[in-house]
Amino acid sequence: MYNVQFEPIGRKVTYSRPLTVLEAAQKAGVEILALCGGLGACGRCRVKVQGDGLSPLSDREKDVLSEDEITAGYRLACRALLGSDVIVYIPEMSRPREQRLQVTGREEPVTCCPSVRKFLLDLPAPTLEDTRADLARIGDALAADHGVSLADVDLGLLPAIGPVLREGGWRVTVSMYDGELIQVEPGDRTGCACGVAVDLGSTKIAAYLVDLKTGATIEARGMMNPQIAYGEDIMSRITTAVRHTDGARRLQEAVVEAIGRLIRSLCQDNGLCPSDVLEITLVGNTAMHHLLLGLPTRQLAGSPFVPAVARPLRIKARDLGLPAAPGAAVYCPPPIAGFVGSDHLAMVLASRLHRKAGTWLGIDIGTNTEISLKSGGRITAVSCASGPAFEGAAVCWGMKAAPGAIERVWIAPRSQEVQFSTIEGQPPVGICGSGILDCVAGMLGAGMLNGRGRIQTGARGVRTGADGLLELVLAEDAAGGAITVTQRDVERIQLAKGAIRSGIEVLMDAAGVDAPEIDGIILAGAFGTFIDPLSAVRIGMLPAVDVERIVQVGNAAGIGAKEVLVSDEQRRAAESLATSIQYLELTVYPRYSRFFAHALRF
Amino acid sequence: MYNVQFEPIGRKVTYSRPLTVLEAAQKAGVEILALCGGLGACGRCRVKVQGDGLSPLSDREKDVLSEDEITAGYRLACRALLGSDVIVYIPEMSRPREQRLQVTGREEPVTCCPSVRKFLLDLPAPTLEDTRADLARIGDALAADHGVSLADVDLGLLPAIGPVLREGGWRVTVSMYDGELIQVEPGDRTGCACGVAVDLGSTKIAAYLVDLKTGATIEARGMMNPQIAYGEDIMSRITTAVRHTDGARRLQEAVVEAIGRLIRSLCQDNGLCPSDVLEITLVGNTAMHHLLLGLPTRQLAGSPFVPAVARPLRIKARDLGLPAAPGAAVYCPPPIAGFVGSDHLAMVLASRLHRKAGTWLGIDIGTNTEISLKSGGRITAVSCASGPAFEGAAVCWGMKAAPGAIERVWIAPRSQEVQFSTIEGQPPVGICGSGILDCVAGMLGAGMLNGRGRIQTGARGVRTGADGLLELVLAEDAAGGAITVTQRDVERIQLAKGAIRSGIEVLMDAAGVDAPEIDGIILAGAFGTFIDPLSAVRIGMLPAVDVERIVQVGNAAGIGAKEVLVSDEQRRAAESLATSIQYLELTVYPRYSRFFAHALRF
Repeated sequence: MYNVQFEPIGRKVTYSRPLTVLEAAQKAGVEILALCGGLGACGRCRVKVQGDGLSPLSDREKDVLSEDEITAGYRLACRALLGSDVIVYIPEMSRPREQRLQVTGREEPVTCCPSVRKFLLDLPAPTLEDTRADLARIGDALAADHGVSLADVDLGLLPAIGPVLREGGWRVTVSMYDGELIQVEPGDRTGCACGVAVDLGSTKIAAYLVDLKTGATIEARGMMNPQIAYGEDIMSRITTAVRHTDGARRLQEAVVEAIGRLIRSLCQDNGLCPSDVLEITLVGNTAMHHLLLGLPTRQLAGSPFVPAVARPLRIKARDLGLPAAPGAAVYCPPPIAGFVGSDHLAMVLASRLHRKAGTWLGIDIGTNTEISLKSGGRITAVSCASGPAFEGAAVCWGMKAAPGAIERVWIAPRSQEVQFSTIEGQPPVGICGSGILDCVAGMLGAGMLNGRGRIQTGARGVRTGADGLLELVLAEDAAGGAITVTQRDVERIQLAKGAIRSGIEVLMDAAGVDAPEIDGIILAGAFGTFIDPLSAVRIGMLPAVDVERIVQVGNAAGIGAKEVLVSDEQRRAAESLATSIQYLELTVYPRYSRFFAHALRF
Repeated sequence: MYNVQFEPIGRKVTYSRPLTVLEAAQKAGVEILALCGGLGACGRCRVKVQGDGLSPLSDREKDVLSEDEITAGYRLACRALLGSDVIVYIPEMSRPREQRLQVTGREEPVTCCPSVRKFLLDLPAPTLEDTRADLARIGDALAADHGVSLADVDLGLLPAIGPVLREGGWRVTVSMYDGELIQVEPGDRTGCACGVAVDLGSTKIAAYLVDLKTGATIEARGMMNPQIAYGEDIMSRITTAVRHTDGARRLQEAVVEAIGRLIRSLCQDNGLCPSDVLEITLVGNTAMHHLLLGLPTRQLAGSPFVPAVARPLRIKARDLGLPAAPGAAVYCPPPIAGFVGSDHLAMVLASRLHRKAGTWLGIDIGTNTEISLKSGGRITAVSCASGPAFEGAAVCWGMKAAPGAIERVWIAPRSQEVQFSTIEGQPPVGICGSGILDCVAGMLGAGMLNGRGRIQTGARGVRTGADGLLELVLAEDAAGGAITVTQRDVERIQLAKGAIRSGIEVLMDAAGVDAPEIDGIILAGAFGTFIDPLSAVRIGMLPAVDVERIVQVGNAAGIGAKEVLVSDEQRRAAESLATSIQYLELTVYPRYSRFFAHALRF
């Protein structure tokens, strides 16, 4: 038995068997950044440990940590093995930062007609002449008074029905989903019907508490996906799920606990109970969807990347451990492919891409970028491995869209003078995705980059960096050090935009569409919302269309999740869309590599 | 913390909070007879306690226990409160005896076509050109190769599908229930498909392991219902469920554990695994059905005695905690009324009462006796509170049908000489139901009872008992004491047969049928199997029909449970029967009390 105290948050825990600092933190619910999923690869999980009895420094730690750090007691959380009492200090750099979370989005009008509805029933009490079963009494009244057929009953609800009927003096409110009785409440509770729509992203979780009588959002709220502690990107998390005993279960528990917390706090702050939540709808990328539902993910980690399930699922909230009404379910629209999830489906639905006349692109930019092309009445989708550069990772001074991040950069074309703004106007501490995009676009416009992406010697603010390559100094950080965009960073952006553009080109090629025929581009998601579309066109990430034809719709996936919650019609439309969207596997497209090579150039 | 050691079985347990000896035994799974359900009423739960620190003798114990017993350390298990280390000896009289359990019954031919079927699939492996989801691959092959539509999938099965497909090299066996995928196994497992049918009685549980390919019973096995430790009859158990915190849960756990044990041992002894069990069907009286499924029973304890649910239910075996294939369900045919259970429905089905031409009675004799009359194409059912006399309880020397029970009695009509036989030929220790019935019939035939049921003075073997009333000495027990049938016993039999006969009379009256029109009587259940039908007619329990028209069919309820397991057609027939059988509430029938008063007479 030994004690671990995590600082600065002051969490104390006791363990009996040897654990790495990272494992101990994960068990304790303390977040440590582990971009690589604890493989020792990223070196980002540095912690300062006070106390003896840790495992000796590993070779990997000797590689990654500086002499000063080692002297100061720094270790890699994923490598240092605990065995006796210690205090672990998690420095700022190893903690996930509070990030700007995009939860709102453009909403189209939807008629509120949810799949779950409440009915008020006044039942006759049983007598010796009328000994119908309690449930039969409900079924008969539903049919007679509301023309609704009771076809099924939530089995978990059965024990409660009799007592509630008697408590309510045979006046009860029942909640029905498609012929299934999912809740019985004493008295008239028809005024109280809500649901929760969830957009489960790899980075953030957005939840919408929705009034099912009106379809209005009562409150939207976002939080970081706590699975980040197990790996920044999808592949690291799948690795955790597949390689570690209990890894999948822990990832599932982490996200279930987080969604549960969101639902409880949303309800509490709006005078509702979780038992008022009659349904939860949830969209997400296929890996998040699979991890949440406890589906296997091994087959998502390697070619040909097939989903375990690609049909709509309705799972009882209690079976997942989510708080809701007794028989309430979590409805998950179907994924489209292994790397085109139900979040993309929801985005297509909410942005009305499928109803647009002409030729339209719908793009969700992220580590994986999903793109759908609507053309000639058909929709085709691809997934591009665009990498984490646009999310602020894998870039020297990159960071998430948190306070102090440089989010806008202007470079004067002639003078090459750099100007920037930061999130919340705080002193600059790094650069987020939209800032890097602006910067590269600005460098191109000012002739500081050539067509192959080489930083030009002699340009204003350009210097030789520690790696011997050129870099542009953007700003000074608080410690007086330079915040720079390096040659490597530019290459990362090149790869990312090349991946996205080649996906677009393949879609257009397959559909026989040329760039001038594009009527519009829909950009969804956090990055798609905050970027300057002009910069995206300038660096060639998007085809050269007029910027007024580029529509930034915000969190369309979340809005789509809300639409399938409040409208049974939209739910059926989503399911039908999922079967009609054609998935195109880029790697087997004949001219894909040529498109990619071409798309890399500025 | 204190320790309790139960003898003679040697079970040791430790508890922290005060418990009665009965509660401690129940928690430890040690059986103590508590006929009244622990209310202190029956005085049957005598135990001998060594050690101090028990609660002082209660008034009830002072009433019930003799001076000798008190001196020897006897207490009532339901009244003595534990607080320190003790040894509890449970004497023979306080332990449930091994009882003769009727599991077999007359079987009519049924075509084997179960609701659950297995299919062998050879699937194409995924490629970059064929990235269908794992589940879609199964659905497509089922449709193409077998014309079966995959409409649903057991959600608990989802995590296993992908790994099993790959383990089996894309050759898999799937089990389907009505469009729902409930199991996936690697390779060809079509040869291995079984199910279990359960007849859940208040006293005994009978289970049938059935081959779903042929419909043949592999093995039938019975055991005592362990809920007996919580109360002998249904009402005591409902009292336990309603009054005690956790009472319902403990009753449920006890019976689930017992059924689980039966299934595991049946499988193990026949070279099968519980995961080969593709479906479980279960019938029982409404209270047993409700207690097993965790349904409320309070409304069954008082007029108008309505069931919570009277529709067929299919509940995942895992949700009940029963061992079976991953997505296997427990199918429960519907109860007919609060005191006419699905066991009676199964009996009607298996005995083909519903298909008989003419006028037939079907009778299940027990503490509650259910009777159905088929007449003029309709079936009407009643429930009679016949009491426990026929099950050997509430009778002075009564006992269950265990070894040493007097089961047959002959009294010579002239000489009044008594002869008897016991179960397994062992020395007599008491009388079971069939023995008492024979005895009363014999006494009537020999003029030892008058028409009102009074034992006649001066009859051979008749003496005045300890209560000052007359009694007939049947035999001597091992200790040399007399085993008798008392005046009170005769009255109990009178009440029991009166209840049954008046139920029959009401049914005939309501249908406008006279006794001579009865074409036959079906007697089901353990008591109905072992009684001499002539005795039943002689005492007037049954109308005066020729004995060759009385058919004893054995455990027809169990056979019915088996039929709905192996035949989807019989399952649908049972569900249709349940809605067509008309329940008649005796207590509101206009002339019921007149019929009852008349039926009391011999």
